Amino acid sequence: MATVKLVQDKDVSSEVLEVFNDIRKTRGTDFINNFWRALAVDPVNLKATWEEIKSTMGPGTIDVMVKEMVYMAVSTANGCSYCIHSHTAAAKAKGMTDEQHAELVKIIGLAGKTNHLVNAMQIPVDDAFLA
Amino acid sequence: MATVKLVQDKDVSSEVLEVFNDIRKTRGTDFINNFWRALAVDPVNLKATWEEIKSTMGPGTIDVMVKEMVYMAVSTANGCSYCIHSHTAAAKAKGMTDEQHAELVKIIGLAGKTNHLVNAMQIPVDDAFLA
Amino acid sequence: MATVKLVQDKDVSSEVLEVFNDIRKTRGTDFINNFWRALAVDPVNLKATWEEIKSTMGPGTIDVMVKEMVYMAVSTANGCSYCIHSHTAAAKAKGMTDEQHAELVKIIGLAGKTNHLVNAMQIPVDDAFLA
Amino acid sequence: MATVKLVQDKDVSSEVLEVFNDIRKTRGTDFINNFWRALAVDPVNLKATWEEIKSTMGPGTIDVMVKEMVYMAVSTANGCSYCIHSHTAAAKAKGMTDEQHAELVKIIGLAGKTNHLVNAMQIPVDDAFLA
Amino acid sequence: MATVKLVQDKDVSSEVLEVFNDIRKTRGTDFINNFWRALAVDPVNLKATWEEIKSTMGPGTIDVMVKEMVYMAVSTANGCSYCIHSHTAAAKAKGMTDEQHAELVKIIGLAGKTNHLVNAMQIPVDDAFLA
Amino acid sequence: MATVKLVQDKDVSSEVLEVFNDIRKTRGTDFINNFWRALAVDPVNLKATWEEIKSTMGPGTIDVMVKEMVYMAVSTANGCSYCIHSHTAAAKAKGMTDEQHAELVKIIGLAGKTNHLVNAMQIPVDDAFLA
Repeated sequence: MATVKLVQDKDVSSEVLEVFNDIRKTRGTDFINNFWRALAVDPVNLKATWEEIKSTMGPGTIDVMVKEMVYMAVSTANGCSYCIHSHTAAAKAKGMTDEQHAELVKIIGLAGKTNHLVNAMQIPVDDAFLA
Repeated sequence: MATVKLVQDKDVSSEVLEVFNDIRKTRGTDFINNFWRALAVDPVNLKATWEEIKSTMGPGTIDVMVKEMVYMAVSTANGCSYCIHSHTAAAKAKGMTDEQHAELVKIIGLAGKTNHLVNAMQIPVDDAFLA
Repeated sequence: MATVKLVQDKDVSSEVLEVFNDIRKTRGTDFINNFWRALAVDPVNLKATWEEIKSTMGPGTIDVMVKEMVYMAVSTANGCSYCIHSHTAAAKAKGMTDEQHAELVKIIGLAGKTNHLVNAMQIPVDDAFLA
Repeated sequence: MATVKLVQDKDVSSEVLEVFNDIRKTRGTDFINNFWRALAVDPVNLKATWEEIKSTMGPGTIDVMVKEMVYMAVSTANGCSYCIHSHTAAAKAKGMTDEQHAELVKIIGLAGKTNHLVNAMQIPVDDAFLA
Repeated sequence: MATVKLVQDKDVSSEVLEVFNDIRKTRGTDFINNFWRALAVDPVNLKATWEEIKSTMGPGTIDVMVKEMVYMAVSTANGCSYCIHSHTAAAKAKGMTDEQHAELVKIIGLAGKTNHLVNAMQIPVDDAFLA
Repeated sequence: MATVKLVQDKDVSSEVLEVFNDIRKTRGTDFINNFWRALAVDPVNLKATWEEIKSTMGPGTIDVMVKEMVYMAVSTANGCSYCIHSHTAAAKAKGMTDEQHAELVKIIGLAGKTNHLVNAMQIPVDDAFLA
């Protein structure tokens, strides 16, 4: 259970409503997920975080589906269950196939393994990587 | 400094040499980085890990440059300095531009932020993501 | 579900009861939360951990409410759901307002972001910070 | 060594210079630490991150020294060496005494301990904390 | 809830069945836990991971019960709830007593504490440990 | 570089000297590693931490070499370089062979892998593990 109130539609201020409506318009759905309802306790942070996500996760030099895959990978390493669920859903919505999902999971598992192997043996960075 | 010996060329067994030579051939370079020299203390683990990396990071349903970007992202969240250096280098070798690198870093930073926001407020997963 | 038994009042030994009673007296409530009931499987560890928490989290050179905020911040980065809940409650009990809670969450989110940015780019510590 | 170029004064664009000058003015020093020089490879991210830090870490409902202590605590749990150094320095600059530093370290250590105890035994959150 | 399908007995391919049957035979039980049912969406990864676990966690130079204790300890530090449950169960099945479990938990808690103390103060590695 | 002073022999108070001498006697060596020299800025914390380590890591129901292996495993997952070096050294001093070290590293790597696989797919804990 959240340690803050999840702001419901009937309780939103005009500031919050403006952000919620931009989320709805950008995503083409009426659904507002809990992340935004929790952030809404601090409307300034809500707006800033939404602007940051909209700008960072929108079109750029990296494909938008790939961006969601990277996001999900970081969230896995950080053990953020909510974020894994929401960004897996976002990656699927942007075209990730089941085969790509399985391959993504395999890469994440492998990275987890070699990160631990490297740390366990305290392997020094090669000079070639520092050039 | 590593807590295991980094196996040098003059000390390799035939088992290790076979793996080193496959790494050289696959990558088109004579350079063997420290990760493999550390793993070489356990030739069975060396061979199995190389086979796993060759298979997982080679061509599949996800672009090989994207695979390195995901790997680098997981390594960042896990704080593995060696892995960040080596997989950033690998992503660049596979075509990642400076602009893509900057954008990747920005996504990782944003994921770090929202992972912490979500954990801090203990936001419950929406039913919509569990369907 | 816990992987150890949560010791109930009817099953406590005199050693455990003594600690439980000191917790009750120190906190001014009869409520013993699950953390102590789980630790009670090892009465020596229970007593040592309680003494450590009572001493470290009691009055000192840092305000007791601030101490709980720091505790909650570390617990967030470590992804300990139980600890986030209990130390958010403790901070609130010691006077943390909703505004301070929202500001705390924002700082934690920002730290999560820049920790990831710094790790992602492997930024070296400035000499000025090492003086 | 950083995986990006650290932008030096002689190479800054006018966009970057504007941010660097605001950092200098806000902090009352000419010194620009490596974090900003690394971020400067992406001037838009540089400006946004600086604005976020200036706003979040400036005066609010939590004391500015306490904010730096929280930041350092999160950075410790995330193992970000650069961030621990820079935010310890910032906390000291804002008045943290050696006694408070020692007490902060002790709280962080204790949180690390109980976070692990709780995870190790998978202790369920008490209903009282969910109310 | 899993973000992949958990493969049920009635849906297994012959490839998956072969692995499931080897798990059953090796462990002397019909029970197949969810980890394998989730991995089964990628039969190649399922087989490779099972072979790796069977080989790494079987008899060697470290006692098999100790191996499960190490596994559970790593899983605790990584906050993997599923893994803590399953490897605690495995350690118990291989003979871990309640006293050993309590002692293991205490070591993990202590390591969590000193890991945080060391990171918080950025203590440099002694030359003696690098020899 | 440490963010606290490392207390040198010529500067120790009688309180600190008493602890240093007990460390020397218990370990049968004059060498005091940096961890204790950093903790010595807070003599009460120094004494309490030494007593906790002496008691927890000394003889009990788990072999003392195994205890060091568990400690090193947790430190790896937490990315504490100092701790990995010192507890690898301690495990070796207590009899860990190179073969056992290689096997320990392999288990830690495997746990890192499956922890990530489980988190990535959000696999629910089996009822059988909750009984």
